[in-house]
Amino acid sequence: MPDLTPPPTPPGPIRLRAHAHTALRPAAAARITGGFWAARRHINASVSIPQGPERLEQAGNLANLRAAAEGSGTFSGDYPFQDSDVHKWLEAASWQLADDSGKPADDSGDDDPGDDGPAADVARLVSLVSAAQDPDGYLQTYYQVARPGRRWSELDWGHELYCAGHLIQAAVAHHRTTGRRELLDVAIRFATYIDSVFGPGEKDDGICGHPEIETALVELYRETGERRFLDLAGHFTHRRGHGLLAGNADRPDPGPAYWQDHLPVREAPTVTGHAVRQLYLLAGAADLAMETGDASLREALERLWHAMTAEKTYVTGGVGARHEGEAFGEPFELPPDRAYAETCAAIASVQWSWRMALLTGETRYSDLIERTLYNGFLSGVSLDGDRWLYVNPLQVRDDHEPLPGDGTARRTPWFRCACCPPNMMRLLASLPHYVASGDTEGLQLHQYAPGGYATDGAGAGAVTVETDYPWKGRVTVTVDAAPADRDWTLSLRIPSWCAEFTVTAPDRQDRTETDPGWLRIRRRWLPGERVVLDLALDVRLREPDPRVDAVRGCLAVERGPLVYCLESVDQEAGLRLDDVTLAPTARTVAENRPDLLGGITVVTAVGRLRSQGRETRLTAVPYYAWANREDGAMRVWIPVS
Amino acid sequence: MPDLTPPPTPPGPIRLRAHAHTALRPAAAARITGGFWAARRHINASVSIPQGPERLEQAGNLANLRAAAEGSGTFSGDYPFQDSDVHKWLEAASWQLADDSGKPADDSGDDDPGDDGPAADVARLVSLVSAAQDPDGYLQTYYQVARPGRRWSELDWGHELYCAGHLIQAAVAHHRTTGRRELLDVAIRFATYIDSVFGPGEKDDGICGHPEIETALVELYRETGERRFLDLAGHFTHRRGHGLLAGNADRPDPGPAYWQDHLPVREAPTVTGHAVRQLYLLAGAADLAMETGDASLREALERLWHAMTAEKTYVTGGVGARHEGEAFGEPFELPPDRAYAETCAAIASVQWSWRMALLTGETRYSDLIERTLYNGFLSGVSLDGDRWLYVNPLQVRDDHEPLPGDGTARRTPWFRCACCPPNMMRLLASLPHYVASGDTEGLQLHQYAPGGYATDGAGAGAVTVETDYPWKGRVTVTVDAAPADRDWTLSLRIPSWCAEFTVTAPDRQDRTETDPGWLRIRRRWLPGERVVLDLALDVRLREPDPRVDAVRGCLAVERGPLVYCLESVDQEAGLRLDDVTLAPTARTVAENRPDLLGGITVVTAVGRLRSQGRETRLTAVPYYAWANREDGAMRVWIPVS
Repeated sequence: MPDLTPPPTPPGPIRLRAHAHTALRPAAAARITGGFWAARRHINASVSIPQGPERLEQAGNLANLRAAAEGSGTFSGDYPFQDSDVHKWLEAASWQLADDSGKPADDSGDDDPGDDGPAADVARLVSLVSAAQDPDGYLQTYYQVARPGRRWSELDWGHELYCAGHLIQAAVAHHRTTGRRELLDVAIRFATYIDSVFGPGEKDDGICGHPEIETALVELYRETGERRFLDLAGHFTHRRGHGLLAGNADRPDPGPAYWQDHLPVREAPTVTGHAVRQLYLLAGAADLAMETGDASLREALERLWHAMTAEKTYVTGGVGARHEGEAFGEPFELPPDRAYAETCAAIASVQWSWRMALLTGETRYSDLIERTLYNGFLSGVSLDGDRWLYVNPLQVRDDHEPLPGDGTARRTPWFRCACCPPNMMRLLASLPHYVASGDTEGLQLHQYAPGGYATDGAGAGAVTVETDYPWKGRVTVTVDAAPADRDWTLSLRIPSWCAEFTVTAPDRQDRTETDPGWLRIRRRWLPGERVVLDLALDVRLREPDPRVDAVRGCLAVERGPLVYCLESVDQEAGLRLDDVTLAPTARTVAENRPDLLGGITVVTAVGRLRSQGRETRLTAVPYYAWANREDGAMRVWIPVS
Repeated sequence: MPDLTPPPTPPGPIRLRAHAHTALRPAAAARITGGFWAARRHINASVSIPQGPERLEQAGNLANLRAAAEGSGTFSGDYPFQDSDVHKWLEAASWQLADDSGKPADDSGDDDPGDDGPAADVARLVSLVSAAQDPDGYLQTYYQVARPGRRWSELDWGHELYCAGHLIQAAVAHHRTTGRRELLDVAIRFATYIDSVFGPGEKDDGICGHPEIETALVELYRETGERRFLDLAGHFTHRRGHGLLAGNADRPDPGPAYWQDHLPVREAPTVTGHAVRQLYLLAGAADLAMETGDASLREALERLWHAMTAEKTYVTGGVGARHEGEAFGEPFELPPDRAYAETCAAIASVQWSWRMALLTGETRYSDLIERTLYNGFLSGVSLDGDRWLYVNPLQVRDDHEPLPGDGTARRTPWFRCACCPPNMMRLLASLPHYVASGDTEGLQLHQYAPGGYATDGAGAGAVTVETDYPWKGRVTVTVDAAPADRDWTLSLRIPSWCAEFTVTAPDRQDRTETDPGWLRIRRRWLPGERVVLDLALDVRLREPDPRVDAVRGCLAVERGPLVYCLESVDQEAGLRLDDVTLAPTARTVAENRPDLLGGITVVTAVGRLRSQGRETRLTAVPYYAWANREDGAMRVWIPVS
């Protein structure tokens, strides 16, 4: 297995320190080489990421960096956090540079993500960012160009520490994947300066209106080994929740819960306020818990995660029910039509959940990651990779209108507030690192994607995965390497949606299921031995929790990890989706359609038209693929006949 | 009938010009002397309105006027339209000054709205407003004090013409009820100056981001007879809808539909955008149609009203489904929990509908007025008259949290954006004028409230109404005066909710029902003759339109014009409202409860607890009275067992 030699520095997020307090550690090497996600990642690498620099140029983000470097010029864009779009693109492109396997196996090779194009763009943007840095380490073009002299005076809405966080994450990715220090040095200088202003013992007790720097500083600690960055992350995390943020006169005060300044993380009973702010904060708190072993912080995180998933998460994995404040709503406030479910919030949910999965070793976190990735996350980008959704509703009406502020719920090449596109790029570019983990006993597969995954350390080993997941339920895992002298455990996550599965292993006696959700096969492995897992992919008609008022009396169609939806374009001519009902006992048929939407399995069923009292054949497609053909009606939840 | 001699100037809104093109004309005199609305109006006159000046002082609105007058000082408050709160209070107090009948008949007289207190406050605030006017007629303290030199430069968000409109309405009310010209002269000077800047043929083609001046200018035309004000109202109305408003750099562009600048009124297919903006605009357009006889404008208004009521109105009469943008949603987007249903939007709906009722003579408009007044409007003020709701949801969850921006959905003594309280005051103070109308044939009763109502002109006559409506369905109408020499028609609206009624008239042969919703009794009347109308007040379990996703599988309890709700405080101890279901066949009981919430009729029924599978006795109270005891759970729509 020549391609799978674990490199000393795995080119993905979360390179834990040696003594981190986690149940699991990220895989030492991870490559997705084919199948569903390879196709999506190929589009990301060949279309989305290469388009980034031009989009950033057109939107003025790069001009802002030049203006800061030259000390003259005007600021472009509507938001103080324009720089973060550049930083997130740099992070995405850096992860991608280290990974030439984003192509589908059958690709002819006409796009080569490793060629000079992206690498040259990365180098150019790194230089632009570096040149914009002030001599004292400060770097945010909004305050450098548009509001000189106001540095640190508007922490509530200024996003300075937020932008610093994304700069740090980009720098860590760039260093980790290329070995180059240029951007990392910029980040260290800025972080050092921030520490001198806000660090423990310093007089400024400010926190940023938008969490992000917390998780970034832990990563900077991981990359540099400098404990002061971990301390600063803890300082920002635990100072929050004491009403330090009060807004300013120019904008209505959103209240302290909006930016999670109402209660410290340890005391908060549930997730609340702005969803991305909340989840970036909790990802950072999980990073802290991983590196420090803080047990009460871990308990709080487990409680908050349970509250989110039990009461405030859509069937698509989307989170953040409210347009107003881009916020979590109350428990069971989950309207399908006005779902905000921001793409960035889905990304933040995956990032937090993966940290929880490593921290605890429990499968429920990767269950949610799977649900989110295949549905409410992937819906955020068009199949061709160049149009985006900011808002991911579960229903669009037959007579939907263009309404104020609603451009974000239609696929758009870029946004005035362009947080989501480069955020999707960075998660897709680093996606292989969410598939597998290791511990001292062996290797765990959290997701099923064709490729090679390897662990190092005490439980070192390597596997190859073959599967047509999520279209087919068979997953074949070949153990390529394992300790020759002792038992080693291959752990396979049994998705929570799966009611029935079969497994074929070298010896039936090896199998155990002591931990919920983990199928563990422990034995003395010979290289080349295989495990075949067959997950039953029956179509499920899912009833909602009766406390979700907004979808009472409805059913959702699911198959495997995919949530389905009806789009008007697939139904009989003239049909209105608001006229359709479906019986709970309806017979469903899953049909492979290689011709449709890049190759999908559709689900068909016989429904009824309420207005005419007659039957109609309904065709459902995976939710992630909606809005790729026409701006028609769509619904995930279908009223019961 | 000594008290009912029609004064030459009826002290209410909409004093039509002689040649106005309407089916009906407002009553010449109208007094509510007892019953349901007299009690609410007594609280308004004795608590709400008298508290106004102190609230306005505390909020800084009066200091702003002093600062403008003195040419020094700082601006208080968060919004450019702070002045409008003063203007609306002045309008309310002016209507009230002319009406000493706001007391219930059984009141001991310890509060006298006619004493020197309110009159002195009115005089004092009129002086403050007058003193703040600039020599050229301009008057808005935000631009005078906070942003001198920026006058008319920020029409999108500046609210200058909006504030001018409320000033004009206050001035008309003050003049119409007191005969004093001081405030009217201020308004005329300002309107004349506005005409010189924006009038037909002038070079500035601006319109205000918030409609309001249109309806006000028509009233100023009515009060002064000066045609130029009518022309200016038409100019502003018809210039709208051509994309003149574009927002500004400091705030995200809400899109042209937000402020109804996407299409001219005549071309708009439905109501959209910010609900209060939309409805003030349409009220003004109806005023225009009334005074000009513009038939195509009337047709557009009828179409828009139908679209609103068929697709975008809550069962409470509330409108504006979305918190985001305080806006109408899409058709059938009517979530109960996140209903915005701003109190001001309910008021605007009543104002527009009353103009449509006069314009067309059709009862459907007063059907909606009744539904709105008794439910989504009246919920806006506490029973004690000193706490307010800005947002009027149809559901509050058991576990509701204080969430960002949500203070407006809990009763509050005043708001940072205090548009609603003085708006309720002015509608309650002028409410008698929404009860009756006249035409050349006789008198029409649109609402049922004890009191005296008279018409003038060709169909002059007078009636006295006695009733315990809405608690009881009997309405007794005595004809006090009618032409002695010819037939005269008494018209009674049969509410659309009423499935069965009986009527006892002097002679059964006189009764006709040729127009939908109008029961007409035409005869040669003798003074003192009576009509007794008995409306059946059965409790109704209402099913929602199946296209309203948010309340599918639920029932609402109604009785007469009242919508009911469950509040947790009235149910068995420990019951959670999210656990309650009700069968469509449940037997309901209406019970008079003089001890409860100021005297109400409750509706009880046997429901079921989903979690325990057992029965529980449910008690429903009128929606308008909710949130007067504790901050508990509430719901209008109850899931079907």
